[in-house]
Amino acid sequence: MNSDNLSAALDAVRATSPLVHNITNYVTVNDCANALLAIGASPIMSDEPEDVVDITSICNALVINIGTLNHHSIEGMFAAGRHATALGHPIVLDPVGAGASGLRTDIASRLLDELDVSVVRGNMSEVKALAAGSASTRGVDVCPEDVVTHDNLAQSAQFARDFAARAQTVVAITGPIDIIADAKSAFAVENGTPWQGRITGAGCMLSSIAGAFAAARNDCPLHGALPAVCCMGVAGDIAAARMVEADGNGSFRTFLLDALCNLDGATLGRLAKVEEL
Amino acid sequence: MNSDNLSAALDAVRATSPLVHNITNYVTVNDCANALLAIGASPIMSDEPEDVVDITSICNALVINIGTLNHHSIEGMFAAGRHATALGHPIVLDPVGAGASGLRTDIASRLLDELDVSVVRGNMSEVKALAAGSASTRGVDVCPEDVVTHDNLAQSAQFARDFAARAQTVVAITGPIDIIADAKSAFAVENGTPWQGRITGAGCMLSSIAGAFAAARNDCPLHGALPAVCCMGVAGDIAAARMVEADGNGSFRTFLLDALCNLDGATLGRLAKVEEL
Amino acid sequence: MNSDNLSAALDAVRATSPLVHNITNYVTVNDCANALLAIGASPIMSDEPEDVVDITSICNALVINIGTLNHHSIEGMFAAGRHATALGHPIVLDPVGAGASGLRTDIASRLLDELDVSVVRGNMSEVKALAAGSASTRGVDVCPEDVVTHDNLAQSAQFARDFAARAQTVVAITGPIDIIADAKSAFAVENGTPWQGRITGAGCMLSSIAGAFAAARNDCPLHGALPAVCCMGVAGDIAAARMVEADGNGSFRTFLLDALCNLDGATLGRLAKVEEL
Repeated sequence: MNSDNLSAALDAVRATSPLVHNITNYVTVNDCANALLAIGASPIMSDEPEDVVDITSICNALVINIGTLNHHSIEGMFAAGRHATALGHPIVLDPVGAGASGLRTDIASRLLDELDVSVVRGNMSEVKALAAGSASTRGVDVCPEDVVTHDNLAQSAQFARDFAARAQTVVAITGPIDIIADAKSAFAVENGTPWQGRITGAGCMLSSIAGAFAAARNDCPLHGALPAVCCMGVAGDIAAARMVEADGNGSFRTFLLDALCNLDGATLGRLAKVEEL
Repeated sequence: MNSDNLSAALDAVRATSPLVHNITNYVTVNDCANALLAIGASPIMSDEPEDVVDITSICNALVINIGTLNHHSIEGMFAAGRHATALGHPIVLDPVGAGASGLRTDIASRLLDELDVSVVRGNMSEVKALAAGSASTRGVDVCPEDVVTHDNLAQSAQFARDFAARAQTVVAITGPIDIIADAKSAFAVENGTPWQGRITGAGCMLSSIAGAFAAARNDCPLHGALPAVCCMGVAGDIAAARMVEADGNGSFRTFLLDALCNLDGATLGRLAKVEEL
Repeated sequence: MNSDNLSAALDAVRATSPLVHNITNYVTVNDCANALLAIGASPIMSDEPEDVVDITSICNALVINIGTLNHHSIEGMFAAGRHATALGHPIVLDPVGAGASGLRTDIASRLLDELDVSVVRGNMSEVKALAAGSASTRGVDVCPEDVVTHDNLAQSAQFARDFAARAQTVVAITGPIDIIADAKSAFAVENGTPWQGRITGAGCMLSSIAGAFAAARNDCPLHGALPAVCCMGVAGDIAAARMVEADGNGSFRTFLLDALCNLDGATLGRLAKVEEL
């Protein structure tokens, strides 16, 4: 995948303005909605089981984020997910906190098994929990020993390809170095800033915009997931460059949305740091 | 209604600081609370059926927004709404996504039928869905064919007056041109900026502050709804004028709250672009 | 407690990065998460009864905020709270709206009775409602007659110590003058700005970061609660000093997070205005 593919994917999102159904957590939902609007897509949120089938029907993609799952919304996730699968809509799964609780690991695993998930987007600890069916993560953050580094890049890529092959999905494992893989290919992205770990929602926002990219590139989930990851990383770089001394995570959050909002395909292609592994 | 009426309404909100009970969605609820505080009112959020009657009792207005309705909160909407009706408190209904799902259209219609709703605030597609009892809207955004323009302004005003007459309410249909009508009168407001469509929550915030204005002008819902719409439009204009090149929807959201916060009656009266239709 | 203790407490939070389990309202939850990240802690939110025990197990503190309580999350509050009590984790209780509804007063009272609560953080009306078992507050804001002033400071301190003694907790009563007390000692903090009352969530954010401080100083809840209150007050002062003419509560909210993010122990110790009563 070259920079022209990245540019074209973002341009396609902005040209088609996909409508993205989000069943997500109440912590970062506002940021997810604004990130989708920033990138040129339209968000709609609905988790009531009786409502989700109608909403999924009019949308172009479904994002399921288990960040604050509850029994009622879990029912909505499966109902929406089955309907999206039946309609051939791309589904992005964000297994927030998989490994941190039995319920989260179990529900994320079942969603992955039962639905036709196009993209799994999580940190390495969450994806390892999904791969193992169990694990212990430190809340919603990656465990230090799981962080992708230049030293473990080859093994991490192999893990990602294996996971993608077994789960028949694309996986986007994000962190200081992001890995995006399907069964055959793996890419590393080295954009982004530590500030993304100092706000809540950087991962959730990425999962939501991955839904928009998946809709725009439903022919090839990898060609959707990789540009989405690059967008968030490049926007992070641009936002961090705007920070002055008195600024902190409040301003960074604002600047990140601003950067997503102003990003165009050409800039994305120029600034993305992608390497095939 | 002249600019003195607009000024007086905002001044009345700031002088009386109405307490507004919001049963609203978890996407934009923080913005709704901050918008109410910006305009000089006080927000309280409660949707638990066992809690809402007590909360409505101590409030001056009720705002019902169905953006992320679920079975439990729907029960809270009807319980709070019946109690507000019994107490003579103004009720604002925001039928988010009416027309996008059967549940939303049905619940919004039933709320409108069973409660004494003072103001319905929605986009044209949502209000048409309410008028028809069914419709197909594109998620939570207005359908292109439903946008109010100078070409269809007279018909749109007629539709609004007819809807208001049948539903015995005031209707505020917002978009590039806003229409605010009761059974007899209709007004157009041409303030505002396309940026309001690039953030989530501009409509929800307006519905919430319309609750504050309805409380301050409970004698005449039209004299509450029109100034509320003007406030949001004028604040949008002021916020947009503050944007610099690197800014996007993140900064716009901040500037919009800032502008609401700093707006006074005199400025509102001077900048509002209102025309009777 | 001197300025060295304040500095040391903040430094300890930043050094240990406590993981804080929040069962909180959907209005200000995003601000709570970002405030915890700003202060150097890690947030996780979970309210599903089946999920909370696992989550609390991996955390260092629990914050229970009843701002938008519902029947399902109430069950989660008690389940998490009992488990945190069993594990000896500090618990912070924010009785949002106690006194405003029977349900809120009742649930907050029961949580305080049944759990080993380390810190109660509320406004004076809420704490009086808890003390009385009933009261009438004006929504989520303090009643004018309950505001702590220099004139009633001695009685307010006595009330706080008595409440702390009876409830076997530390109490942080916040407002223009904050009072933090256990059974034996009471302190007043005079940092902060009226802007904190013009945004939603200043109190909720404080309760969440109090959870991080309580984890870092689990040996002495008072030595955790007091620095937390000072942090929010000093950050408010710093944020207010950054405001320019066009700014309002939107910008203040951003600046408050920024100030928390940049605050270090030495600055906290230097700017905090604490007096033992």
